[in-house]
Amino acid sequence: MTRTLPAAVDVREVGPRDGLQGEAPIAPEDRARLVAALLDAGVRRIEAVSFVSPEAVPAMAQPRAVLSALPRHEGVTIAALVPNLRGADMALEAAVDEITVTVAASAEYNRRNVNMSIDESVRAVTEICARCADAGVSVDAVVSCAFGSPYEGDIPSTDVAQLAERLRQAGATALTLADTTGMATPRVLADVLAATGTDVGLHLHETRGTGLLNAYAAMEMGVRRFDSSVGGLGGSPFAETAAGNLATEDFVALLDDLGVRTGISLARLLRASALAEHLVGHRLPSPVYRVGPRLG
Amino acid sequence: MTRTLPAAVDVREVGPRDGLQGEAPIAPEDRARLVAALLDAGVRRIEAVSFVSPEAVPAMAQPRAVLSALPRHEGVTIAALVPNLRGADMALEAAVDEITVTVAASAEYNRRNVNMSIDESVRAVTEICARCADAGVSVDAVVSCAFGSPYEGDIPSTDVAQLAERLRQAGATALTLADTTGMATPRVLADVLAATGTDVGLHLHETRGTGLLNAYAAMEMGVRRFDSSVGGLGGSPFAETAAGNLATEDFVALLDDLGVRTGISLARLLRASALAEHLVGHRLPSPVYRVGPRLG
Repeated sequence: MTRTLPAAVDVREVGPRDGLQGEAPIAPEDRARLVAALLDAGVRRIEAVSFVSPEAVPAMAQPRAVLSALPRHEGVTIAALVPNLRGADMALEAAVDEITVTVAASAEYNRRNVNMSIDESVRAVTEICARCADAGVSVDAVVSCAFGSPYEGDIPSTDVAQLAERLRQAGATALTLADTTGMATPRVLADVLAATGTDVGLHLHETRGTGLLNAYAAMEMGVRRFDSSVGGLGGSPFAETAAGNLATEDFVALLDDLGVRTGISLARLLRASALAEHLVGHRLPSPVYRVGPRLG
Repeated sequence: MTRTLPAAVDVREVGPRDGLQGEAPIAPEDRARLVAALLDAGVRRIEAVSFVSPEAVPAMAQPRAVLSALPRHEGVTIAALVPNLRGADMALEAAVDEITVTVAASAEYNRRNVNMSIDESVRAVTEICARCADAGVSVDAVVSCAFGSPYEGDIPSTDVAQLAERLRQAGATALTLADTTGMATPRVLADVLAATGTDVGLHLHETRGTGLLNAYAAMEMGVRRFDSSVGGLGGSPFAETAAGNLATEDFVALLDDLGVRTGISLARLLRASALAEHLVGHRLPSPVYRVGPRLG
């Protein structure tokens, strides 16, 4: 089995952005402390902030204050999510290393989420990519609902692949496929990856308890880039009843056991998890955080 | 990927025994209602009761009352866990179809659990198997801590295989390897299965969020028999903080999606889950029960 697994994977930590955006607002200095703790654990790529309206998402207010409180780290990619060109301009001015944008593969989800058609969103991404190209900053385009939509159900893999290709044409330097409402399975992953190729990142959710399983299956299929969130924070539209994002602890514990390198120290990561739990003020969903690693 | 998966697997439901044994006691008629609901959903093999001391495990009291309240089902295997020869005699008198016994691969776990050495436990199993052979009843010997022990850590796979072989020699007609404290990973599974062969059942736990992943990986490795528990009830020594047994809902939802037959109707299973939740009086851990199947 394990001979089909990669020697290493690239883990992008999204907890400080995707994880915290649904929590009660936390002071920028504390968000910076969490980012710093994650970098200390060996995280080398992190979505640290978003440049969204502080009225719309109070928990993401003051991204500049978060970024300016961060220590300098060599070889680290600090990413910022932006919803539009104005956000991109602010992020570029703040000298982030990477920009993240999202477009849903579900027309209805996209409309409800950003009140735009998919075509309008792709045009917005095109403008953002042009601006980032001028600044020499890479853009990761995240396709949400790539493995199913709560509105349309299954999204044809050809539609996902077509949207991915349009986003590449628009100038995206990387693509991530997101399982926004936890509808991915190894079968759906295989279908979609056959259409898009495996040179994509995956953003997986535990909504239906399949995040870690899908990450494992996707590694076997050749995927090498994954998002995860400290403690499993965030990511679920069913936050009251189910876990959200794939937890970094659970993923790193699995990869350590399988001999797949991440560069992240699980022991130090668990210290960052404790800080995250302290900051959000409630229990983190990650079972490995709660129970400890298998050889404890 | 999916071409390496089996056409069908055998799911043994253990909720009414393993799931309920750690809950507040439920009336025998209600436990029988739950078993009947699970059989109605298509379950064909079910650990329904145990013949243990009602003082030691009040939740498992009155197994005869549970069994006699069950409707007749054609082609169904009703199993009972027994801790010793006396329990086996009672179970045989009650005309169960299968007997389950357990021995830990961890000497320390076995000592703490049943106050016997592994040798003493194997001798007890030998006596039980002889009695069951006379009655023409099969015995499934469950090796607990097969993928790691909270006391000894990793258990050498040769030790697990040796114990499995001794239990076969003792007369066990089937073997199940149990991940008692959620320490299995695909790597450990591959190691142990290479030593024991894949003609074993697996009893997996979600203690560290790896139950569904391990079931998937084990199917790829050739395993065809699995235990699961309605709602994910039971099975965890960390019940306050983490999920327990692999949930039947989560497993069946995955298998349905992968095209692996179980004979179980997910829609009817979810009705049995609702009954289980009502009976135990608290939320079930299964995410698929809580959130619903991916296509609703």
